[in-house]
Amino acid sequence: MKNVYIHPTALVDSENIGEGTRIWAFSHVLKGVSIGANCNVGEHCYIESGAVIGTNVTIKNGNELWDGVTLADGVFVGPKVIFTNDLHPRSPRLPQAARRYSKRDWLFATVVKEGASLGAGAIILAGKTIGEFAMVGAGAIVTRDVPAYALILGAPATVVGWVCQCGRGLEFLEAAGTCADCGLEFLREANGISLKQAEPVSA
Amino acid sequence: MKNVYIHPTALVDSENIGEGTRIWAFSHVLKGVSIGANCNVGEHCYIESGAVIGTNVTIKNGNELWDGVTLADGVFVGPKVIFTNDLHPRSPRLPQAARRYSKRDWLFATVVKEGASLGAGAIILAGKTIGEFAMVGAGAIVTRDVPAYALILGAPATVVGWVCQCGRGLEFLEAAGTCADCGLEFLREANGISLKQAEPVSA
Amino acid sequence: MKNVYIHPTALVDSENIGEGTRIWAFSHVLKGVSIGANCNVGEHCYIESGAVIGTNVTIKNGNELWDGVTLADGVFVGPKVIFTNDLHPRSPRLPQAARRYSKRDWLFATVVKEGASLGAGAIILAGKTIGEFAMVGAGAIVTRDVPAYALILGAPATVVGWVCQCGRGLEFLEAAGTCADCGLEFLREANGISLKQAEPVSA
Repeated sequence: MKNVYIHPTALVDSENIGEGTRIWAFSHVLKGVSIGANCNVGEHCYIESGAVIGTNVTIKNGNELWDGVTLADGVFVGPKVIFTNDLHPRSPRLPQAARRYSKRDWLFATVVKEGASLGAGAIILAGKTIGEFAMVGAGAIVTRDVPAYALILGAPATVVGWVCQCGRGLEFLEAAGTCADCGLEFLREANGISLKQAEPVSA
Repeated sequence: MKNVYIHPTALVDSENIGEGTRIWAFSHVLKGVSIGANCNVGEHCYIESGAVIGTNVTIKNGNELWDGVTLADGVFVGPKVIFTNDLHPRSPRLPQAARRYSKRDWLFATVVKEGASLGAGAIILAGKTIGEFAMVGAGAIVTRDVPAYALILGAPATVVGWVCQCGRGLEFLEAAGTCADCGLEFLREANGISLKQAEPVSA
Repeated sequence: MKNVYIHPTALVDSENIGEGTRIWAFSHVLKGVSIGANCNVGEHCYIESGAVIGTNVTIKNGNELWDGVTLADGVFVGPKVIFTNDLHPRSPRLPQAARRYSKRDWLFATVVKEGASLGAGAIILAGKTIGEFAMVGAGAIVTRDVPAYALILGAPATVVGWVCQCGRGLEFLEAAGTCADCGLEFLREANGISLKQAEPVSA
């Protein structure tokens, strides 16, 4: 692994860490985990075999990424976000639950798409997908899939607005909106918003 | 201690850990703590003197079990559950609070009964009892005692359904219900549900 | 540094820790952090350069104090309180967010004033001030400044009562209230309460 920084107290059992990625104190990356280039994994984190992490991802302190969690490129995971992979957990050591945990179908995967942000202390129920560039507010409990570019808040979380790729909130006059910070243009549609495609230049 | 696995980075100051129990990285078990056989204590946990843990208990990562917390056999503690033992805390070092902390009556105990599950990020206020096989939803804030077999959600948490010992949700037609997974039978009563006792075989 | 206790597994990069302060296992105090005398920093904590901590402060386990967080004297930080310093975070490594993080104006400071308590798992949005001796309930999400002596609960948190410096709840008969525990007297005003000043002795 080239130019990977691993803090002396961190435990890294994976060989699959991308260039320029840094892993900080008291964190543990298990065997088989894949982490892309140019990521930052904060302190007191735990990344379990089966988790997959893209490039340019920022994982703040105190995060646990379980088997089944995928973070696409450019994702932000705030401090102490809580991922889950089981919708009605029991102790697998409880005799009454042994049969359930003898198979793998209790596990539901979570996907966080490109550029999305998960606010501090947000809780993501197993089996949900967070759309591209969505922003989950601090402490929100995500119980449904989240549309791309949506700002969601509350418990259970609901869509309260829309945000640009750069993070700035968007305002829509009728069907179109332009980011006041970076100038990206969006179109409002029935079930969400999308990036306005550049019109083809006439020949 | 026989067949106890302690990760090289874990700190275990107790001599009272049951057979087959495993304690993972960066966790700390203090003096006098009692942990039963066949338990799993995840990473970044802290178990304080005065905590008592039964057998077959699963404690996921990032949990702190304070003095006054008792977990019965087969309990599941999801990631980053938050226990408390003080209902109106101040810094004990604050001069105005010194008198209060000179005695021990600020401490309220928490009991989690056999087979119960505490979902990820749930918060348990001091002094509460979680009934047998109850299931506390992710992020729920428990402010009252929880009946056996109850599924509770929300902040403050309220009963929204009932679950079997195996974890499966139960449906009741009138006064009786049978688990679709494991076949256990339950009776609905005024204040909760209970396991149907096998009828005595006539002689 | 005199009489500072640092657990053998803790990392302390600051030279500015007050007398009698203790820093427990698996915690990390970064360069430049200032911590006053007689504090207690629990396990699995992270205190970032730029954080400032007064005297007699109690920080329970699992806390992260970011750049921009100031805790005055006598503050209590319960287990796993979540501080933040960015109101609409993106991964700074995301190309679309690079411009925003090239300056420092994304950072909003948090101030917790003398004697205040932050309950377990509370979330403090960036840029807020918690007044003297206020008490934030477990799991509350603080989205506005908090008045001195206020008890706040919920998500978003609202004022539900008032507490004394010693932590006891206060009751008001008309405009005045006296703490049943420590006898301090308070006056109720339009926007909060304040400590009743001793009347000047007539000459």
